[in-house]
Amino acid sequence: MAREDYERRMARAVRAAEDAGLAGLIVTPGPAMGWLCGYAPPRSRGLLTMLVVPVGGRPKLLVPAEDKAVAERAAAAGALELSAWAEGADPYGVVVKWLSQQGRYGVSDMTWARDLLALQRAAPGTSYIALTEALPMLRAVKDAFEVERLSEAAAASDATYEAALGLRFAGRREREVAADVARLLTEGGHDVVAFTVVGSGPEGADPGHEAGERVIADGDMVVLHVAGLKDGYCSNTARTVHVGPPSAEERKVHDLVREAQQAAFEAVRPGAACQEIDRAARRVIKAAGYGEYFTHRTGHGVGAVPHEPPYLVEGEQLPLAPGMCFSIEPGIYLPGRFGARVGDTVTCTETGGRWLNGSDRAMAVVE
Amino acid sequence: MAREDYERRMARAVRAAEDAGLAGLIVTPGPAMGWLCGYAPPRSRGLLTMLVVPVGGRPKLLVPAEDKAVAERAAAAGALELSAWAEGADPYGVVVKWLSQQGRYGVSDMTWARDLLALQRAAPGTSYIALTEALPMLRAVKDAFEVERLSEAAAASDATYEAALGLRFAGRREREVAADVARLLTEGGHDVVAFTVVGSGPEGADPGHEAGERVIADGDMVVLHVAGLKDGYCSNTARTVHVGPPSAEERKVHDLVREAQQAAFEAVRPGAACQEIDRAARRVIKAAGYGEYFTHRTGHGVGAVPHEPPYLVEGEQLPLAPGMCFSIEPGIYLPGRFGARVGDTVTCTETGGRWLNGSDRAMAVVE
Repeated sequence: MAREDYERRMARAVRAAEDAGLAGLIVTPGPAMGWLCGYAPPRSRGLLTMLVVPVGGRPKLLVPAEDKAVAERAAAAGALELSAWAEGADPYGVVVKWLSQQGRYGVSDMTWARDLLALQRAAPGTSYIALTEALPMLRAVKDAFEVERLSEAAAASDATYEAALGLRFAGRREREVAADVARLLTEGGHDVVAFTVVGSGPEGADPGHEAGERVIADGDMVVLHVAGLKDGYCSNTARTVHVGPPSAEERKVHDLVREAQQAAFEAVRPGAACQEIDRAARRVIKAAGYGEYFTHRTGHGVGAVPHEPPYLVEGEQLPLAPGMCFSIEPGIYLPGRFGARVGDTVTCTETGGRWLNGSDRAMAVVE
Repeated sequence: MAREDYERRMARAVRAAEDAGLAGLIVTPGPAMGWLCGYAPPRSRGLLTMLVVPVGGRPKLLVPAEDKAVAERAAAAGALELSAWAEGADPYGVVVKWLSQQGRYGVSDMTWARDLLALQRAAPGTSYIALTEALPMLRAVKDAFEVERLSEAAAASDATYEAALGLRFAGRREREVAADVARLLTEGGHDVVAFTVVGSGPEGADPGHEAGERVIADGDMVVLHVAGLKDGYCSNTARTVHVGPPSAEERKVHDLVREAQQAAFEAVRPGAACQEIDRAARRVIKAAGYGEYFTHRTGHGVGAVPHEPPYLVEGEQLPLAPGMCFSIEPGIYLPGRFGARVGDTVTCTETGGRWLNGSDRAMAVVE
């Protein structure tokens, strides 16, 4: 990514902001800043770093004086008007001078309340809306560079899953298996492990479970769910395995989840409302009488952060567009008994969905 | 930390909120939530988790349905009224019902703008102030448990520094040495490495520098600065070493920094304004003609986050109190030439400062 690439992204953001009636965007460090200009402060000391991308005018970046040298070397530096604030100065006073005093601004979702409150106080005529609410599609549509990064992350998590099938499960604590899976993920090229869920037997029936002290036993269903970052983009893969041969009911539940995932995948096409993808998965599970046990949304956007728009959830009417990338990860959770989940990342193309993951979705038998 | 410990902390927070004229505190995941009730969501999916500690009434915690089982097992769970919000529901609507509709609330500094904007919109009569601005002293005064954790983290970073003196410096890239230091920090018991700065020669003159591709040479001054978390509390240690014998000027600059640090330490006493500690360090460096090369504040509070109040900076008139813990880390940075920094964590006792670090502050000669 060179200066010109960031300029293109910022120009796209300005057009979207203008269309939404905004005076500009205000962004603090995090994925939105990384996406817009590639800058991340060398370390977080709680000192204000703020990017203002106005509609009309050059983008401006304010950094603490200590970070000035680093900011000057950023790839997008030439596209930004760089200012530094020194110890004892009021950084909000600097930013407020850059704002249209009656303007409405999109502010990055994760901007600290401390900073938003300071702007609201210093410029009482301004108003704010969360960036994702104002421009939900801004980062949702990935360019070719980003789809390629997401494919690579998915391939690396596929390889991790395949290697994990060779691990010993029976007789070991979930935590131990999870640590092995995390190691495999890192060895396979992931820079950051977001989570490695190992939910065995009844623990697998809690979709919020990570990995605990339970000793995995012969006959357990085991939900494996891994996510992490590779080269700045996220993977998100869920598979369910079985220690020894599954029962007829376990197989039936797993088949249902796969069928639901497939139905959701087949519903993916440009223009389809996000909720339609969720409904497609839910319909399959409901029809089989397990509706109440599918307790979460079908999926969510995946990009530079593990969860972002579009959200595949009832009530979300945003239409899918080519380039969007998201997880499709339905599950069935039978309290006190077992759970099954199958999840992959998918991109929407002009003609429908395309899997970014390729590892076998059948329930593997492990030892 | 048991339920009763968290109840005591929440009661202390309620008293402070009441004294500040607030109707309560609103806190999302992060250090403030960890400090108040010890809860951290099992993983971050961007779904709202929010703690409301009202003045009058029981503290209430809202979590996504997926996290309910985990939240029920939290140490402080018995002290909290727990609610879960399901997919498709409006979590802000739940929180707003808990609020006094004309109340003024302290909101955790790092609460997402997305969440604050949603509350402002759903309850337009409420108003907000950043928690650290409203109650700067809330977490600044550490209890004995916390001072002990900070001492342990400081001791572990001392041990890391001492082990780092045995590393090879000359002929290696800063990045390689920094990776070794990070490994030593982890091996010595740190759970998280916040940063490991290795600033050699002219790179050491940039206080924002971390570690780069520069190959360290014989004759270099090298700033080492490490910080991380051990058992939830932070270390922050800076030392300056020299590859081979230093020049007279290098020694003089380093002696000045040590003298400034000592002067700041000696200014620590209950009731002293924070800026007095900064002034004490700055006076020494200014008197020697290097004032313009000491470009950052003298120090900052250290606790469950690496930077927090009290800030030892000009203009900060808050008085020190027994139990406060902070860094004292002056430096001199000669652009294009070299830098020197010496930093430790210190606690304020009834009778003055007490070092939490104990490793030798003299400029060590390394190879």
